[in-house]
Amino acid sequence: MAALVDRRHIDFLLDEVLGLDAILALPAFAAHDRAGVAQILHTAEALAEAEFRPSYRHLDENEPRLENGRVVLPEQIGSALAAFRAQGFPGMTASAEHGGLGLPRLAANAAFLWFQAANVSIANYAMLSMSAAELLAAHATAEQKSRYLAPLIDGRTFGTMALSEPQAGSSLGDITTRATPLGDGRYAIRGTKMWISGGEHDMAENIVHLMLARIEGAPPGVKGLSLFVVPRKRLDAQGRPGIWNNITLAGLNHKMGQRGTVNTILNIGEDGETVGEIIGRPGQGLACMFTMMNEARIGVSMGAVAHASAGFLHSLDYARKRHQGRLPDNRDPASGQVPLVAHADVRRMILAQKIAAEGGIALGLKLAGLADLKSAAPSEHERADAGLVLDLLTPVFKAWISEECLAANFNAIQVLGGAGYTRDHPVEQHYRDNRLNPIHEGTNGIQALDLLGRKLAMADGRALRLLGEAVRKTQGPCGARAIDAFSALEKATAHLTHLRGEAGPAASLAHAADVMEIAGATAMLWMWADMASAATQALSRYTAADRPFLEGKIATAAAAAAYLAPRIDGALRRIMAGEAIHHGTSDAMLG
Amino acid sequence: MAALVDRRHIDFLLDEVLGLDAILALPAFAAHDRAGVAQILHTAEALAEAEFRPSYRHLDENEPRLENGRVVLPEQIGSALAAFRAQGFPGMTASAEHGGLGLPRLAANAAFLWFQAANVSIANYAMLSMSAAELLAAHATAEQKSRYLAPLIDGRTFGTMALSEPQAGSSLGDITTRATPLGDGRYAIRGTKMWISGGEHDMAENIVHLMLARIEGAPPGVKGLSLFVVPRKRLDAQGRPGIWNNITLAGLNHKMGQRGTVNTILNIGEDGETVGEIIGRPGQGLACMFTMMNEARIGVSMGAVAHASAGFLHSLDYARKRHQGRLPDNRDPASGQVPLVAHADVRRMILAQKIAAEGGIALGLKLAGLADLKSAAPSEHERADAGLVLDLLTPVFKAWISEECLAANFNAIQVLGGAGYTRDHPVEQHYRDNRLNPIHEGTNGIQALDLLGRKLAMADGRALRLLGEAVRKTQGPCGARAIDAFSALEKATAHLTHLRGEAGPAASLAHAADVMEIAGATAMLWMWADMASAATQALSRYTAADRPFLEGKIATAAAAAAYLAPRIDGALRRIMAGEAIHHGTSDAMLG
Repeated sequence: MAALVDRRHIDFLLDEVLGLDAILALPAFAAHDRAGVAQILHTAEALAEAEFRPSYRHLDENEPRLENGRVVLPEQIGSALAAFRAQGFPGMTASAEHGGLGLPRLAANAAFLWFQAANVSIANYAMLSMSAAELLAAHATAEQKSRYLAPLIDGRTFGTMALSEPQAGSSLGDITTRATPLGDGRYAIRGTKMWISGGEHDMAENIVHLMLARIEGAPPGVKGLSLFVVPRKRLDAQGRPGIWNNITLAGLNHKMGQRGTVNTILNIGEDGETVGEIIGRPGQGLACMFTMMNEARIGVSMGAVAHASAGFLHSLDYARKRHQGRLPDNRDPASGQVPLVAHADVRRMILAQKIAAEGGIALGLKLAGLADLKSAAPSEHERADAGLVLDLLTPVFKAWISEECLAANFNAIQVLGGAGYTRDHPVEQHYRDNRLNPIHEGTNGIQALDLLGRKLAMADGRALRLLGEAVRKTQGPCGARAIDAFSALEKATAHLTHLRGEAGPAASLAHAADVMEIAGATAMLWMWADMASAATQALSRYTAADRPFLEGKIATAAAAAAYLAPRIDGALRRIMAGEAIHHGTSDAMLG
Repeated sequence: MAALVDRRHIDFLLDEVLGLDAILALPAFAAHDRAGVAQILHTAEALAEAEFRPSYRHLDENEPRLENGRVVLPEQIGSALAAFRAQGFPGMTASAEHGGLGLPRLAANAAFLWFQAANVSIANYAMLSMSAAELLAAHATAEQKSRYLAPLIDGRTFGTMALSEPQAGSSLGDITTRATPLGDGRYAIRGTKMWISGGEHDMAENIVHLMLARIEGAPPGVKGLSLFVVPRKRLDAQGRPGIWNNITLAGLNHKMGQRGTVNTILNIGEDGETVGEIIGRPGQGLACMFTMMNEARIGVSMGAVAHASAGFLHSLDYARKRHQGRLPDNRDPASGQVPLVAHADVRRMILAQKIAAEGGIALGLKLAGLADLKSAAPSEHERADAGLVLDLLTPVFKAWISEECLAANFNAIQVLGGAGYTRDHPVEQHYRDNRLNPIHEGTNGIQALDLLGRKLAMADGRALRLLGEAVRKTQGPCGARAIDAFSALEKATAHLTHLRGEAGPAASLAHAADVMEIAGATAMLWMWADMASAATQALSRYTAADRPFLEGKIATAAAAAAYLAPRIDGALRRIMAGEAIHHGTSDAMLG
């Protein structure tokens, strides 16, 4: 069975490209060293293989059921998460003061990849809980942390994001769930939430919903939203889960993939009072929620790259073992068949996956490293700058990478041919599971609006300038292609900023998808240029046996440039020509 | 519920773009007129809605089962096909001399689109049977036709294509199924066939497998293959299905989608003698089979465009009804939400689908019209030329269109957001069903090799020249873009022909995928340019109420050019620069 994630690639990124050593040298991470990180990666892979991977297909075929108003989960989910908890993984990134391990994100997100690649439906429960812990660590009071945060970090309690409602999906400003003050700092919450992953189950001693609601009398729109922690079971005076908090399961959504992650519709406060506590200040709900949402957006696309990685390695393994056909120069039908991987078009599909999977992992871990610098760099200035680049790249990673990695899974199936379309191979399920990632935690259309409407202009364009400084430092054979790509992004941004001033935001934002195309391809080329540069430098240090590994990085970077540069050109041409695809069409002209 | 196929679009194509009237004027189609075609289209839509569409989800959730060595099909398949038969649809295109209706392909393929869009898993049984009838009509003896062809055209018997074997998928030259002469013109067949759609069931009085096998002593490779008709039940002296022919069901394949079409592994002649009759001459098996395979390749991508059409119309309907968010210029959160279709990025996703679905239907029906001319044009010269262009475009339609239409289904889901990812909407299933189309009847990689290695150079390049003459006649606002695209195809072809001479076929064929990209985008731009031109001319003739329909064609053609022209440029650039993606990579460098 092929590996889920190539450990050599992870080590190469950590050591040669992304500077794990420098991050480990920061005082915040003094408790950790490179050997410890290696041990955690090893444990993650072993645990993912032993406890997560075996039930991948089973959970697809036996999705959670609704029985007598309760969710029945396949037992493999609980047992895998119990093993995950036993090894301390839920607290990987939480700080030591809250009972966590305080690992750098760079190491933790790399380790978590194996769980996502092995069985994303199980990993989701953990991912949401870890993101909920981040939110509480950032915004809860000390007293709230003592009650809600520790059980999340310990893995006894799970967390959810409870934002969407039937009439409010992408448009969070239309949330109508109400919060009525109870006079003691607590609120009675009432409304309906939907698309809530992990919203109801019996697997943990409690579930805490991080929920957006509108305090009575608050203004309409997002400014009227506040954030609440709403537990499934109310905590008693000792902070232990006690009586049921009147959150009723109204139904389940049945998805194309990621079926093991139960997706719920919840009625809040319908059968009695549901009590929540406010987190942060009234009216600051969305801002607080973004701590979790940004985590989740990165987590979503780490899931996408994990699928791409697993599909890439499975199809490569298959292409090496399966013999079919002969090379074009061989006219002898009596000669033996060659491995699929020998065929040019199969190799094209393998390399396209390698670009997406390895480049996607690189970008995802680049973001993790920026998160580490944002929280732990020595100076306020460095922390702020890292945060800006992280904020700029988050929608790019979420949107562009999730689509590229789905395309990679298309190719994984295609390498296998008919076999890839059957449920006998995991690539079929990876493709279906991965199809969710362009949708949840903000659709890719919303991400593109965020990028063009907010992030590119953020801090007077400082985030973009900082990214440009980083990209322009890129050396090596593909550096020039990455720098050209960034220039296209700058040009598009300047043009659309001008257009916004001239013609208003709608005219500019109509080009959001094309700007995302340029930004995504630029980020990808940057990563591949950095990898090619690092590989070139490492050639003299690595053993002869490792040379093909390094040469593969250099060759793949060239292939990435050959495929991505024309896409950037096309998107830039459309932007400069004002050819947003829908221009000039009325509704009646659509069909 | 949205329509599956836009009848207005079909009529526009038939009357304004593809010249149905001229085809109906050919002597071969004297029995038909425009009003009759309209009636057939109407009946097809009504029947597809009434008998095919209602079980679309049911067949996905209740796939065929293997019970005691037999296939159990959900009853909806048989009842829908009985209704299809009762209306005479199995004989739509068969000639009157064989008991068919003798409809032009152009009309018949248009009518069949509704069945494919409504429930492709059922339509497949009919499609394979109609293709099998075509093969027998072209290559069987008169005596064989009397026994095997009439029941297919009548719909009493179903047909299959039985080519693949465990060791021979794309590489048909490696087929090992043996045929031993029985001395009376019949053969004993022995071997294993797999991926056989509709290979076993009790739904019809018989199944005839069109099977490739190697007569004992025949040479290796494709030159040693012969074609046999191998019935499930042997025909008795009166031509009636009699005793079982010892074809054993060895297992079923379980697919991601198209689950209602049972996919079988068959052991031939293992439990007793399996008897087949040769069709055509020994050693001519693959050439004869191509009659059916080319039919099936077009049928496959007609299925792909049917999925794109259904997804396009469903998501457009949803986008008009679902209200979410506000336009960027509106800062008032208390104002009402707007329909999804008002958002620029949603409209982009709708238009991208319109390009693929309507353009794909146009190209598919263009091929149907060429098939009509190939069989029925007045002069031998015209028939031959139509056949050349049809042969050239078949792999392009199969491969490039099937991928574009899958991408369209991606967008259909994306327009719906989370709802699109649930099994509550058909777009989820269309996406899974459509994922098969880039694989079966020759993977898209094989199609690209066929295009570059054979079709572009066919008849000393005459096919390509004829296509160029047709494209260069294109008028109207997008004509120049289509003509530029064709010039890129010529340039790429000339370059790779030269490269083949200089460096051998492998060096040239490594660029097959990029040539396919250019050819596909060129064909699509040609269709959109023709549609825009026809719409421009029709503006003065249509009523005011129809103007938006025509203006929509013109605007969509411009959008198609904005998106496709850069893709052509990128692929051409890679070809001219020798940047086949895998160049310079050894196996060890892949991962």
